[in-house]
Amino acid sequence: MFVKNCWYCAGWDYELSQGKHAILARRIADEPIVLYRKPDGGVVAMEDRCCHRQAALHLGQKEGDSIRCMYHGMKFGPDGKCTEIPGQDHIPEKACVRTYPVVEKDNWIWVWMGDPAKADPSLICFSVGPGDKNWNIKTSQVRVNANYRLEIANLMDLSHLTWVHRNTFGGTDAYTRNKIKHVMTPRGVRSTFWVRGVPAPVFAQHMFPPGALFDLSFDVDMTLPCNFILHFQVWTAGTATDGPSDGQLVLDSYSCQAITPRDADSVDYYYSWGSSVATDGPGMSDMLYEAINAAFLEDREMLEAQHQNIKERTDRKMVDIVHDAGPGKMLWVLEKFLKEEASTQIPIVQAA
Amino acid sequence: MFVKNCWYCAGWDYELSQGKHAILARRIADEPIVLYRKPDGGVVAMEDRCCHRQAALHLGQKEGDSIRCMYHGMKFGPDGKCTEIPGQDHIPEKACVRTYPVVEKDNWIWVWMGDPAKADPSLICFSVGPGDKNWNIKTSQVRVNANYRLEIANLMDLSHLTWVHRNTFGGTDAYTRNKIKHVMTPRGVRSTFWVRGVPAPVFAQHMFPPGALFDLSFDVDMTLPCNFILHFQVWTAGTATDGPSDGQLVLDSYSCQAITPRDADSVDYYYSWGSSVATDGPGMSDMLYEAINAAFLEDREMLEAQHQNIKERTDRKMVDIVHDAGPGKMLWVLEKFLKEEASTQIPIVQAA
Amino acid sequence: MFVKNCWYCAGWDYELSQGKHAILARRIADEPIVLYRKPDGGVVAMEDRCCHRQAALHLGQKEGDSIRCMYHGMKFGPDGKCTEIPGQDHIPEKACVRTYPVVEKDNWIWVWMGDPAKADPSLICFSVGPGDKNWNIKTSQVRVNANYRLEIANLMDLSHLTWVHRNTFGGTDAYTRNKIKHVMTPRGVRSTFWVRGVPAPVFAQHMFPPGALFDLSFDVDMTLPCNFILHFQVWTAGTATDGPSDGQLVLDSYSCQAITPRDADSVDYYYSWGSSVATDGPGMSDMLYEAINAAFLEDREMLEAQHQNIKERTDRKMVDIVHDAGPGKMLWVLEKFLKEEASTQIPIVQAA
Repeated sequence: MFVKNCWYCAGWDYELSQGKHAILARRIADEPIVLYRKPDGGVVAMEDRCCHRQAALHLGQKEGDSIRCMYHGMKFGPDGKCTEIPGQDHIPEKACVRTYPVVEKDNWIWVWMGDPAKADPSLICFSVGPGDKNWNIKTSQVRVNANYRLEIANLMDLSHLTWVHRNTFGGTDAYTRNKIKHVMTPRGVRSTFWVRGVPAPVFAQHMFPPGALFDLSFDVDMTLPCNFILHFQVWTAGTATDGPSDGQLVLDSYSCQAITPRDADSVDYYYSWGSSVATDGPGMSDMLYEAINAAFLEDREMLEAQHQNIKERTDRKMVDIVHDAGPGKMLWVLEKFLKEEASTQIPIVQAA
Repeated sequence: MFVKNCWYCAGWDYELSQGKHAILARRIADEPIVLYRKPDGGVVAMEDRCCHRQAALHLGQKEGDSIRCMYHGMKFGPDGKCTEIPGQDHIPEKACVRTYPVVEKDNWIWVWMGDPAKADPSLICFSVGPGDKNWNIKTSQVRVNANYRLEIANLMDLSHLTWVHRNTFGGTDAYTRNKIKHVMTPRGVRSTFWVRGVPAPVFAQHMFPPGALFDLSFDVDMTLPCNFILHFQVWTAGTATDGPSDGQLVLDSYSCQAITPRDADSVDYYYSWGSSVATDGPGMSDMLYEAINAAFLEDREMLEAQHQNIKERTDRKMVDIVHDAGPGKMLWVLEKFLKEEASTQIPIVQAA
Repeated sequence: MFVKNCWYCAGWDYELSQGKHAILARRIADEPIVLYRKPDGGVVAMEDRCCHRQAALHLGQKEGDSIRCMYHGMKFGPDGKCTEIPGQDHIPEKACVRTYPVVEKDNWIWVWMGDPAKADPSLICFSVGPGDKNWNIKTSQVRVNANYRLEIANLMDLSHLTWVHRNTFGGTDAYTRNKIKHVMTPRGVRSTFWVRGVPAPVFAQHMFPPGALFDLSFDVDMTLPCNFILHFQVWTAGTATDGPSDGQLVLDSYSCQAITPRDADSVDYYYSWGSSVATDGPGMSDMLYEAINAAFLEDREMLEAQHQNIKERTDRKMVDIVHDAGPGKMLWVLEKFLKEEASTQIPIVQAA
C-alpha cells in the first residue's frame, strides 16, 4: 500500500522544539513514529513502540540524546539501542527500537521509511521553505480522512480548480482546456502549463478593475509519495500565445505541499504558499494564506465524501475522462515503485 | 436484505425546496441517493456517486434540469446521462449515473429502488399528508439506529403501548388483550381492533374528569418496506361490545409513518399525526404532535438497545409469545418478497 | 478469553440503591448484565437480555423481587423464570433469563459468571471496604480502554511507580531494585517486598522536612480475574535491613482494587485507598484519595496507548526484562484457569 523506500514528510521543523516535553507522535505509512530533537538539534525518529511491551514512547521523556520509555524506564539512544534497563544489569542484544533516517530540509522534517542503506537525501524533493529569505512563505496543515491516491489524483488534475474551488481559486473554466506538458521524472511527474487571458482567481478579484485579465503559469513537480511543489506566476495578460507571457509580472510564488499518508484512510497535509519578496506587498502573502486554507477545506469535503463512496464500492467500474491523464501518470509511478518493492525483501536495519 | 422492487420514502416534500443549494443526500436500502428538484417541480433521484471517480453528487450544483458534479464539472441530465464533460468533446456512452423513479404523493417523496419497468405508482401506500385540507396533520422525523425489522415488529404489535409508552400513549393494559383481525394485503398486512372502556392515553388524561373512559379504534395498514398508516378514532365509552362504538366521537385522526431503512443498522423515520378538521380544537393537534415526538424517543431507546443485543447474538434462540403473531405476518411478507427477488435478476436500467 | 468460574466485581454496593429506578447495566466478561436490589436488600444479577426478543432488561421496571421487561411486559422473578406474559395464560418452560450468583462482601458486589454449582463465596478475595470501622477507606472508579491482561502486568510490577507515577506515587527509583517475594496462591499470587530509606512519595513530600526518609512495606494479594489488594505501610526510616522496620509507623493503609474486564478492549476499575483509624489524621485519607485518582489517570493514558499498539501488532516479538517475573506469574495463573475451562463444558444453569 505504501512505498517504503521513500522520504515522508513528518511535519514542519518548528513543530519539534527543544522543549522538555516536545515529543511528536505521528503515523506515517501505517507505522507509529515518535520524533524528538537531540540537544545538538538533530532529529531522531523511532518506532513509537517500546521493544519490551509495546508501550508508546511518545509518552516518554527526553534525556540528552536519548529517550526513556516512561512505563518501565528503559532508555534508548538515538540509534534505538537500549542503554539502560533500571533494575537489570544485562541489556539483551535484541533490546532495541527501530529507528528511521531523518533529514531536515527547507523547514520540513523528512523520514525514510524503508531500507536505511538506501536513504539518499538527494531523493528529497526540491521545495521552498518559510526560512527562505527570498520568499515570504506561510505554512499550515490539515488532516484529511481520505486515501492518499485521491490526493494524488486531485493535485495532478487542476481542472478541479474551476469546480471545487469556484469560490476561492476559480473564476474561469480555462483550467478545463489546459494543454499540459507532462514529463516523467525519476520519482514522479513534472507538469507545466499556461492559462492565458483569464480573470484573477476569485479570492483576488476585488484587487483589480472589472475585466482585468491575467496570464498564469503553473510549473508542478510532483514526487513520491505525494509531494506537490508548485511554482505559480501571474502576469497581466499579454499577447504571447506560446512561451513566456509578455505581460507584467504581478506575482511570483511557490506553494509547497507534502502529503503524508497516515494509513489507508487518512493523510496529514503540510502545505505553504507565499510570494517572492520582489512581488510581495503589504498583506499579500496573508491573502494567499487565507485563500489556500479556505481552498483546502473545499478539497477535504470533496475527497472525504469520495473516499467513503469508493470504500463502499471498491470494485465499481469508473468512466475515464481527458483530465485523468495527469493522475494516471503519477499513479503509474506509484504502482511501479510498489511493484518493485513487493518483489524485494526490505531489510529492517537499525540506523543512527 | 432489502426489497428492491419497492417504493421507499425519501422524506417530506418540504425538505426539498427550489432553493439553489437544496440538494438532499439520503441513504436508502444501503445505497447513497441524491435528490433535487427540477424547475418544473419534478424530483430527480440519482445514485449519489459520479460515474467518473465516485465523487458525491450531493456536493454538486443544480443547473436547470441537470446536476453538475463539482469535482470535475461533469453535467448529468435528469435521466442520468452525462451531457457535458468540460474540456472533452466526446461523451462516452457509459458516462451516466443510475437514476431512480420518483413519485410525490401525499407530501411524501417516494423512490423506487428496483427495476424501473416495474415502478408502478399505484403500489405506493395510501396516506394522509399535511397538505390534506380535511385533516390537520403535523409532521416530524427521527433517526433510529436499529434494523428496520425491529421497527416492523414494534409497529405490528401495539401491546407495547402499555409498557414502552407507559408515560405517553399508555394508561391501560388492555392493549395486551387485543383481539386483532389481521388480513393479508398484496404487499403487507391490514390489522384492525377495538380497545373499549379504557382511560384516555396518559398524555391526554388531564383533559377529562377522573374515571372518564373511552372506546378506541385502530385501523392499521402496514406495507413494504415499513410503512404504517394508522386511522385512529376515539369515542366516549359506549355500550357496544362488537362493531362500531355507540359513544360520541371525540377524535378522528391519522398517523402516517414511513420508515426507510438506511442500511442494516439504521432507519430514517418520517411520521405524522393529526386530527380531522371536524374533531380538531385549539391546541389539539399540537398535543398529538408533542405526544408522538415523546413516544418515538421511548421507542428509539428500546430498539437501539435491542438492536445491539441482537447484533451481538444473532444466533440466540428466542421465545415466542402471543403478540408475535402480527410481527410474524408482516415479516413473512418481507421474507416472501426478498426470496422472490433473490431468485430474479433485477436489471439496472436508466429511467427518466 | 475470560475465566468463567470466577467472581467478578460488579461495582460498589452504594451504586445499587433501593430507588425505584436503580437498575445497573454492566458488561462483565463480554456479557451484558443487569443488576437490581430486591426489597430485602439482596441483589439479583441477570443477563441483560429478555428471552423473548432480546430487549434490554435494564430499561425495565422493578416490581418487588421481580423485574419486568418494559418492551412487552414479561415479568421475571429473581430466579430468572418468567412469571407473567401479559395477554397470554401459558408461560413456556423456556421463558427464562439466565441469572448469576451474587454475593456482597466488603461493600463490593460480586457476580459469578460460570457454573452456579461452583459459586463458592469463600473464593471471593479478601478486602477492606469503606464500611470497615477500623479503616477510613475512600472509593472511586474509572473506565480504562485496555485489555485486562495489561492491568495484571501493570499491577504485578510496581517498578512502574518510578516512571508512570513520577509525579504522584514516585520519588525514588528504588522500586526498580525491589527484592520481591512471590508466593503462588490457589487463584493468584501473593507478593511482598520492602523499600527502605526512600523519600516520601511525591504527593506527600510537602508534609515532611527535606531529606526525610521512610521504609515502605508492600503486601499484595492478587487474585483472578484481576483483583489487587494492597496492604501498604509506611515507617520513618529505621536501621533494619531485613524483616519489619524499626522506625515509627506513619501510615497503615489498604488499597483495594477490583478490575473487571468488560470485554477484550476495556475494563471497569473499582478501587479504594485509606488509612487505618490509628494512623489517620485530618485530611490524610482525602490526600490518599486525590493521589490515587491522579495516578490512575497516569496508568490509563499509558495502558490505552499500549493497548492500541498491541492490537495493531499482536504477533510482535517482545523483549523480556527482570520486572516481568511478577506479571508472568499472574498471567500464568490466568492461562492455567483458561486452559482448564477450555477443556470443560460449563453448564449454564439457572441459579436463584
